[in-house]
Amino acid sequence: MSTIRTRVAIIGAGPAGLLLSHLLGIAGIESVVIDQRSREEIETTIRAGILEQGTVEVLDSSGASSRVRTVGNRHDGIELRFAGAGHRIDFADLVGRGVWLYPQHEALKDLIAVRLAKGQDLRFGVTAVRVEDAASDRPRVIATDADGAPLEIEAEFVVGADGSRSVAREAVTGSSTGGYFREYPFAWFGILCEAPPSAEELIYSNSPGGFALISQRSATVQRMYFQCDPNADPNALSEEQLWEELQKRVPGTTLKEGPIFQRDVLRFRSFVAHELLNGRVALIGDAAHTVPPTGAKGMNLAVADVLVLERALRALLLDNDDRLIEAFPEKALHRIWKAQHFSWWMTNMLHVAPDASDFDRLRQLGELRSVVESEAGRRFLAEAYTGWPLEGLA
Amino acid sequence: MSTIRTRVAIIGAGPAGLLLSHLLGIAGIESVVIDQRSREEIETTIRAGILEQGTVEVLDSSGASSRVRTVGNRHDGIELRFAGAGHRIDFADLVGRGVWLYPQHEALKDLIAVRLAKGQDLRFGVTAVRVEDAASDRPRVIATDADGAPLEIEAEFVVGADGSRSVAREAVTGSSTGGYFREYPFAWFGILCEAPPSAEELIYSNSPGGFALISQRSATVQRMYFQCDPNADPNALSEEQLWEELQKRVPGTTLKEGPIFQRDVLRFRSFVAHELLNGRVALIGDAAHTVPPTGAKGMNLAVADVLVLERALRALLLDNDDRLIEAFPEKALHRIWKAQHFSWWMTNMLHVAPDASDFDRLRQLGELRSVVESEAGRRFLAEAYTGWPLEGLA
Repeated sequence: MSTIRTRVAIIGAGPAGLLLSHLLGIAGIESVVIDQRSREEIETTIRAGILEQGTVEVLDSSGASSRVRTVGNRHDGIELRFAGAGHRIDFADLVGRGVWLYPQHEALKDLIAVRLAKGQDLRFGVTAVRVEDAASDRPRVIATDADGAPLEIEAEFVVGADGSRSVAREAVTGSSTGGYFREYPFAWFGILCEAPPSAEELIYSNSPGGFALISQRSATVQRMYFQCDPNADPNALSEEQLWEELQKRVPGTTLKEGPIFQRDVLRFRSFVAHELLNGRVALIGDAAHTVPPTGAKGMNLAVADVLVLERALRALLLDNDDRLIEAFPEKALHRIWKAQHFSWWMTNMLHVAPDASDFDRLRQLGELRSVVESEAGRRFLAEAYTGWPLEGLA
Repeated sequence: MSTIRTRVAIIGAGPAGLLLSHLLGIAGIESVVIDQRSREEIETTIRAGILEQGTVEVLDSSGASSRVRTVGNRHDGIELRFAGAGHRIDFADLVGRGVWLYPQHEALKDLIAVRLAKGQDLRFGVTAVRVEDAASDRPRVIATDADGAPLEIEAEFVVGADGSRSVAREAVTGSSTGGYFREYPFAWFGILCEAPPSAEELIYSNSPGGFALISQRSATVQRMYFQCDPNADPNALSEEQLWEELQKRVPGTTLKEGPIFQRDVLRFRSFVAHELLNGRVALIGDAAHTVPPTGAKGMNLAVADVLVLERALRALLLDNDDRLIEAFPEKALHRIWKAQHFSWWMTNMLHVAPDASDFDRLRQLGELRSVVESEAGRRFLAEAYTGWPLEGLA
């Protein structure tokens, strides 16, 4: 069995793991990143991305993703639509910040390229099996390489950035599934289509038939979603039926239709791991938490985790100071639970629960009116959507 | 059978009915007010009251309740307490407005006195049985007087201001109970005690054991509440147990104890009647809607209804213009559903549901943190608590 020795072993080459390795590299801290997927799979699995301004600043200023500002699209607001009328939440005016539409897989391409250019030890097709000796000062990742041969990574610190089905989680929480969670009685039916944009900004629409999100990918490709049953069969509806379903949920806008070339049912839930740290093993990103997509917080929360952890690892590994790593869970969880609330709130305010009573529906419209009619309400939403200040960001 | 003829027949001598008769009187529109209760019962049934600044302005400037500003206590903020720390919501700083603590029965004493002094036809002990001919221009209230003799009031307009068990509701909605509603799995255990105030302002406390509200009545009498089971027996706990229960829910404050001389279990629900208007019969106040007490909206929402309806009745009865009365339901419901949302929100943010999961509890703390850490969040809450602008208020 081959053994690799490094300072920080990072499981997972997603946004969290790659950005962490990048920032550690800048600080002169060597790391090894492994991922069970191939580079191609990571770079071609299409995932939406709405980046907070702070996330963009981190990616940009650290040189981690140079195309965000050029290829990504800055949005200065979103529209909330309900009861037949649209209401713009003007981010620029309310909080002086914006968000960027930049697909996550594009950010991953940037991160992989920059890490490889910097000589990062980045291994695809390597599957972590478990993490051992979390409580010691030499924790280890037990893995198998692309050929099925055993591989061990011995490090001073191990980071589980290995997504919602994290293997590292068990070494931190004592259970592979242990966490706080909430299920939702709906999912998103997502489509990709060849068409010009139907709107300049995202439309979050609450309608009697359920939620819909009209979003954009490029001048010729669009991404749209509508609330559906979690057990819906993505192939049960014809293209015509899909357009009809989408169109009736955004009354007032005539959607620009075109061939639908991808369709999927996206289930989601809220999840926070019971613990984020055990000795010398920490969890970040989806390994630590998942949020419903309605708040657009997924990747941003991962970046926020990275910033808190990276600072703590610098103190630990460069100055032998463990105070920040001890404080990591509380500091990270403060933002995580605010983001969990925001994601839950946006989800519940905009979706129609299958068992919603008439009271619930009318209260929901009262809530939406309360928010859009109040500058404070709109700003409260805009602050969360565009992102609270990031810890330690220069 | 005796028949009374008047311009407006008002069922119910609560805040809504009395204030409406008062404002109509100022406009020169004669009315008759009936209530099945005795004057003494109305004036001595102790009910809490938190008045929005706009409510106080209406009571004061119209001469309806002259003691609000002298006997009532102005509060410029409330405290939200959770996770062991208090956070002040500074109304004066956030919205430049405040609220007044003034018990509802004190406002009723003022209103009854001023109406009787003005010669108002105000009849206690008169029980409305039903409202007839709503669709005609001579609707009638069928009632029995204090001696059980039949009495009929024929008017140009009938107003149901007769509380949550409204008799008028059937003539408007077609059903005595018809409405949108939501139950809650908890109630408030309220006490009145002889003690000095434990805090200068209201404390709304979310604790692991449940919600508590520390409020004030006078220098020597205090009112406090804690979340309980709706089926709790008010006599099952000793005074010592009551103080223990209250004290553990407001960690950080040592409650000033004293003899408890009243105790009650207050159930509540959210309710909005299906219709607020049918022909020449309208519903206002608790007959139209009830809210959980957490948002302190009850009496304020009744006053808001009165202002919209009184303006509409002036147009109808003085100028023969029915446009405002036709618009009354939509205009009133706009505020009602915002207030319903606010009351639901405060209730759910502060109480602990019996079936709350650990996720729900932690999300709730994330929500409370989001609100108190954001000036916009605090202001959004303060705007609602102190009251949105009132329609037609000079």
